[in-house]
Amino acid sequence: MRYADRITFLEDRSLLEAFSLPKDDSLISFAAGFPSPDSYPMEEIEEAFMKTIKEAGPAAFSYATTQGLDSLREEILKRMKGKLKVSFSMEEIIITSGSQQGVDMSGMLFVNKDDIILFETPSYLGAVNALRTYEAKLIGIPTDKDGIIIDELKKSLVEYGDLVKMIYVIPDYQNPTGRSWSCERRKDFINAIKDYDIPVIEDGAYSEIAFDTEPLRPLVSYDEKGQVIYVGTFSKIFSPGLRVAWLCAREDIMEKYLVLKNASDLASATITQYQMDYYLKHFDMDKHIEKITTLYRHRRNVMADAIDKFFPEEAKYLLPKGGLFIWVELPPEKDTRELLKRALAKNIAFIPGSAFYPSNRKYNEMRLNFSNLEDEDIISGIEILGEVTKKYLEEG
Amino acid sequence: MRYADRITFLEDRSLLEAFSLPKDDSLISFAAGFPSPDSYPMEEIEEAFMKTIKEAGPAAFSYATTQGLDSLREEILKRMKGKLKVSFSMEEIIITSGSQQGVDMSGMLFVNKDDIILFETPSYLGAVNALRTYEAKLIGIPTDKDGIIIDELKKSLVEYGDLVKMIYVIPDYQNPTGRSWSCERRKDFINAIKDYDIPVIEDGAYSEIAFDTEPLRPLVSYDEKGQVIYVGTFSKIFSPGLRVAWLCAREDIMEKYLVLKNASDLASATITQYQMDYYLKHFDMDKHIEKITTLYRHRRNVMADAIDKFFPEEAKYLLPKGGLFIWVELPPEKDTRELLKRALAKNIAFIPGSAFYPSNRKYNEMRLNFSNLEDEDIISGIEILGEVTKKYLEEG
Repeated sequence: MRYADRITFLEDRSLLEAFSLPKDDSLISFAAGFPSPDSYPMEEIEEAFMKTIKEAGPAAFSYATTQGLDSLREEILKRMKGKLKVSFSMEEIIITSGSQQGVDMSGMLFVNKDDIILFETPSYLGAVNALRTYEAKLIGIPTDKDGIIIDELKKSLVEYGDLVKMIYVIPDYQNPTGRSWSCERRKDFINAIKDYDIPVIEDGAYSEIAFDTEPLRPLVSYDEKGQVIYVGTFSKIFSPGLRVAWLCAREDIMEKYLVLKNASDLASATITQYQMDYYLKHFDMDKHIEKITTLYRHRRNVMADAIDKFFPEEAKYLLPKGGLFIWVELPPEKDTRELLKRALAKNIAFIPGSAFYPSNRKYNEMRLNFSNLEDEDIISGIEILGEVTKKYLEEG
Repeated sequence: MRYADRITFLEDRSLLEAFSLPKDDSLISFAAGFPSPDSYPMEEIEEAFMKTIKEAGPAAFSYATTQGLDSLREEILKRMKGKLKVSFSMEEIIITSGSQQGVDMSGMLFVNKDDIILFETPSYLGAVNALRTYEAKLIGIPTDKDGIIIDELKKSLVEYGDLVKMIYVIPDYQNPTGRSWSCERRKDFINAIKDYDIPVIEDGAYSEIAFDTEPLRPLVSYDEKGQVIYVGTFSKIFSPGLRVAWLCAREDIMEKYLVLKNASDLASATITQYQMDYYLKHFDMDKHIEKITTLYRHRRNVMADAIDKFFPEEAKYLLPKGGLFIWVELPPEKDTRELLKRALAKNIAFIPGSAFYPSNRKYNEMRLNFSNLEDEDIISGIEILGEVTKKYLEEG
């Protein structure tokens, strides 16, 4: 078959397979990127489905509007205002099938072949994969512990000029590093971009999984021009399988997103939107989030303690203040793809850090998920991985 | 904002708005393209949700695999084998969020800027809109009462040569005309394309909504090369709001679709897949389809009788043998966009036929949906529309 040129930009399936659920029960996988299924409020979800099927009836199984359910959009806007201090109107929010779809549509909306997209590095693999299909050049901007490095960003904005068509960032407890941008850095970022006609996709997937503080104010709350487009999701704080997420953008931009959403799948599933709306109206989402952040904070601590105990000293990490991941760095000459092979032989999986770089890959890092494993699996898995790592580093 | 070039190819929102649910209760809308909400088997759907939430537990709310639920894919393959006489393997089927997503991904997979996509005309507006975003040239091939006209197809294949990258067709009770391709025409079509390296997207959305016969054998059943890609859906035969649909393709092609599906939304919603699987296993889908085809056959008859009674003689239609629509043709100099304005003033809506043409639009046709209205609304709506049409035609 003769495929479109964009297909040559796609990663091969091996990465996709790394995310597949392990079929071997003895595998301890730190590769996952999802919340713990134990955390889903099953009884409340069941009630929400039951009640909403009875109350909404056939409407819950007909096409939703392309924008998504009015009542759900209102609930989300209320939450955003309360938690994130951002106000959007009902014309500025659309329901998407996962925030992944919001990111994908953004590529569709803004990016031509040979344009440039800027990412903080490392970045979310799913966004990199989605945006790669638009045949753009993906450029990574280095980060430090406080977020994207503003001088590096400015340098790229000057160097690439009008070719830069989009910036994609995850300022809160990002995937894969778990780091969060400081408040100062957020303001500096908005100052650095405000004179450019470039949309910023702010991915807030992890913003409410905050261990030590209230969620930080998102970039979009500092944006006076309406150039930041915010994507949010219930995947990490509630259930990823519902695929209920949202995207907020200035009204003139939203009009275009609506046409694209309609073209790509007409509308998101209806019953899952009703269920989510019912849940938000009748149950306490904040209490649920408190429950899961308590659980994940504990699992982060268990993993950090185990790393301190079992990993060689040369392996470095920063304790993340939220999110689902610990990011471990080995000495620069080491390659975690090689380490993964050895780990898999001992039934341990993780994602090598190089997978998360849109450009200028580094090979000496790895992403370890802590949200999705019981304490004993975290400890025994990290013990084995620590030993494998030690042995690998000792080879010099 | 600087948008991608493809955005200039998009239709404006007016068409999208034509599909919005009427907010005015007094409007009688023949514009819809969906099944009757009264037809959903609500009690069985409710049971399927309840049971599956209990049985599957948290798995029903975690990420599904990108391919979709194994058990559901097996059920669909079994149905396809029984009803349509086509066999695909488990590696050749993927669950999509509506067949719309399958069509959209096909554009992504096969079409470069300035390539050519062939459509039978008129064709499904959603497919035209989705494929338009890939910046291709859309060429319509004329049809007659037996389907796409093979000589016209051959002429275009020769004329455009390697530029033709995809053919999109709806051989069964198609949207918008309700016509079905004859068996002979299906075989001739496969013969005409088999020496070209061009994928055919066969949209089977209406194949089981057959009023007088068993579903016809799809194109894909005559295809020995694996160049036909089949999209199917539960939207028209069960519930559109679940967004559960599927796409079948040869394994080497499917590998690419998987990467694209992963990039576009990771996976379809999980609980709706479980629910559909439960329904197929525990209830009688064939009986349900018999129920709705009986209902729609009746409504088709009511509409046809009303047209015969109230429309002027110059308005022509063919009685459709399945599907959801009657396609009415006025004298060639007439414009149904003008007619729509007058109809809306009398609280009657429909979709002007010109909306369904990818190229070389004709303006003298209209699509009337009969599946979604009660008898009395069909009759009184057609009476009013008939009067408006008479008056419009009399103006000469």
